[in-house]
Amino acid sequence: MKNRYLLWLNWPVGAFRLNAASLAVFKSFVTGEVKVVRGVRAFLRELPTATHAIVWEFKKEWFPRAKRLRVLATPGAGRELLPSDAEMPQGVVRVNGAFHGTIMSETVLAFMFAHARGLYAAYDWQRAAARGETSVKGVDPLWPRAAMSPYCSCVAGTTAVILGYGKIGKTIGAKLGALGVSVVGFGRANIAGLKPALRTADWLIVVLPGDTGTDNLVDASVLRALKRTAVVINVGRGNAIDEEALAKALKAHKLAAAYLDVFKREPLTPDAPLAADLPGLVRLPHASALAPSYLPLFFKELAASGALH
Amino acid sequence: MKNRYLLWLNWPVGAFRLNAASLAVFKSFVTGEVKVVRGVRAFLRELPTATHAIVWEFKKEWFPRAKRLRVLATPGAGRELLPSDAEMPQGVVRVNGAFHGTIMSETVLAFMFAHARGLYAAYDWQRAAARGETSVKGVDPLWPRAAMSPYCSCVAGTTAVILGYGKIGKTIGAKLGALGVSVVGFGRANIAGLKPALRTADWLIVVLPGDTGTDNLVDASVLRALKRTAVVINVGRGNAIDEEALAKALKAHKLAAAYLDVFKREPLTPDAPLAADLPGLVRLPHASALAPSYLPLFFKELAASGALH
Repeated sequence: MKNRYLLWLNWPVGAFRLNAASLAVFKSFVTGEVKVVRGVRAFLRELPTATHAIVWEFKKEWFPRAKRLRVLATPGAGRELLPSDAEMPQGVVRVNGAFHGTIMSETVLAFMFAHARGLYAAYDWQRAAARGETSVKGVDPLWPRAAMSPYCSCVAGTTAVILGYGKIGKTIGAKLGALGVSVVGFGRANIAGLKPALRTADWLIVVLPGDTGTDNLVDASVLRALKRTAVVINVGRGNAIDEEALAKALKAHKLAAAYLDVFKREPLTPDAPLAADLPGLVRLPHASALAPSYLPLFFKELAASGALH
Repeated sequence: MKNRYLLWLNWPVGAFRLNAASLAVFKSFVTGEVKVVRGVRAFLRELPTATHAIVWEFKKEWFPRAKRLRVLATPGAGRELLPSDAEMPQGVVRVNGAFHGTIMSETVLAFMFAHARGLYAAYDWQRAAARGETSVKGVDPLWPRAAMSPYCSCVAGTTAVILGYGKIGKTIGAKLGALGVSVVGFGRANIAGLKPALRTADWLIVVLPGDTGTDNLVDASVLRALKRTAVVINVGRGNAIDEEALAKALKAHKLAAAYLDVFKREPLTPDAPLAADLPGLVRLPHASALAPSYLPLFFKELAASGALH
C-alpha cells in the first residue's frame, strides 16, 4: 500500500503555516498521496489511514487511531507540543526539525551587527528628527555624526560564548567563526568552565532548550561575571534567564545590552520584568526562526533524512 | 638622518582622532622620532623636518616647506582633502587608506541582516509599547508575533549587486559570498550590464567613490529596474544617487527600503529630500567606517605596505 502523508500545519504565525509554495516543495519530495487538513477534527478523521503525520501538535491519546502511522514529524525544535520519547508507541518514529539554526543564526548576526554598528542609536536619533526635534541633549538628530563613535565597533575580533552548543548553537558558531569572532561553546554538561570564559566574552549567546534542567541557568552570578560592555542574546527559551536579575543589570548599566527573542512567559505581558523600557533592551516576539523558507527547509531536511520513505 | 613622523590626526569624530591606544599601535611599527600635533600652526612649524606626514588634510601650498617629506599619508579613502596626483611634487608619495572595507562591510551586513530579520519593524512596536500604546493597527506592540512574518526572511540565498567593485566593494562581496549571497560586482567601466542584473537583485549596494564621474549614476531608471522588494544600500558617496528619485520611489513603495550612510550634502539639513520621514528609509550619519580599530587598522596597513620605512 502506498504512503499517505497527512499535513496539518495551520498556525497563527504566517511563516509557520503551509501555503501553496511550501506545499509544492513538499510534493516534490514524495510520491504517495498528500492530504492537507486545517483543523483538529479533519486531522483526526484522516489519521487512521496516514503513514506520515506532519503537525505542530499531537496528543498521545490520538495514537490508538493512528493504525498505519510510522512517522510523526514536527517542524518545531522544541518538544512541548508532541508526546515525549517515552510516550511514543513502538513502530512510530518521532522527528523534530533541526534546520532552525540556518535561520536563527541570521537573527543572531542581525543583533550583533546592529549593536556593533550603532544602528539602534542612529535610529533613535532618526525618529527624534522625524518628530521635528532639533536637538537631543545637544546633538542634532539629523546629523549625529560626532556623537556616533561610542556606539560603533567591529564584530570581527570579538569573543562570543555560546551557551547551548547543539546543532543550532554550532551553526551560529560556524558563521561567527567565518566572520572573525572567537567562539567558545558550552553545553549544559560542561558548564563548570563557563564563568572564567565569561570574563573575557563580548557576547553571551544563549541557545538552550526549554526543559526544566535549564531554568535560570543564566542567573545574577552569571551576569555578574560579564564585562560591563558585554551583550546578552537569547534565542533559545526564556526559562534559561533569571529575568529579574537581567532587568536589574540593564537598569544599573552593568551590561551594555540584551537582545531577547524569548521570555519566561509568552506572550509577554506588561507586568513581566522585561516588558519594561530598560536601557539597552531590544526585544523580538519569539521570531528568530521566522522566514518564508521555514517549512521548505524542514521538508528538505525530512527528505534528506529518509523519514519520508 | 633618522625618520621623523609627524602625526596630525585631530578630528571632531572620535573614532578618527589619534588617542593613546592608537598612538601606541603606531609607535610599535616605527623606530624614528614620532611627533604628534593637534593644530595647523603646530603642523606647519614641524613640517620642514618631517619625513612622513600623516594627516586628515593637506594643502598643496604647504609643499615648499616640506623639504624632507617623502610620504604624505591619510587614513581617508576619499580624495577630497589632499592634493591630487597631478599636484604631488616629485619624490613625495601619497598614500590613501584602503582598509575601510573591513569595517564598512560590517555596516553593510548590519543593514542587510537588520532588514531581513525585521529588527526595525520590531523596534517600532517596542517603542510604541514603551509609550504605553496597547494596540497599533490591531497589533499588540508588546507581542506582535503574528504580525512579524511579512518582515522576516533570510539573507542567505539572496542576490546582491555591488556597484563600485574596488577594494571596499570586493571586501563586502567576499563576506556576503561566505554567508550564502550571490554577488555580482560592477565597476563604472562595465556598467552596461547593470540594468539586466538589477531585475533579479534583492540588494543594490553602492560603494562608488565621490568624484564627478559618479554623479547620479543611480538615477530613476536604475531604481525602476529594481524589484519592489529590493533594498538600496549606499556606503560610498552621496553624489552617486539621485536623491529626489530615490525619495519618490520610497514614498510610492516602489522599493522595500533604503539604508543610507551618505548624502549629496553633508551634514544633512531639513530641506534635503532624504531628510524626510519616508517609508523604509534608514539613515546613518556617514558612520559606516567608524570604529576604535579605524586608526590601528590604517597604521597596520601602512606598515605592511612599506610606506613607513
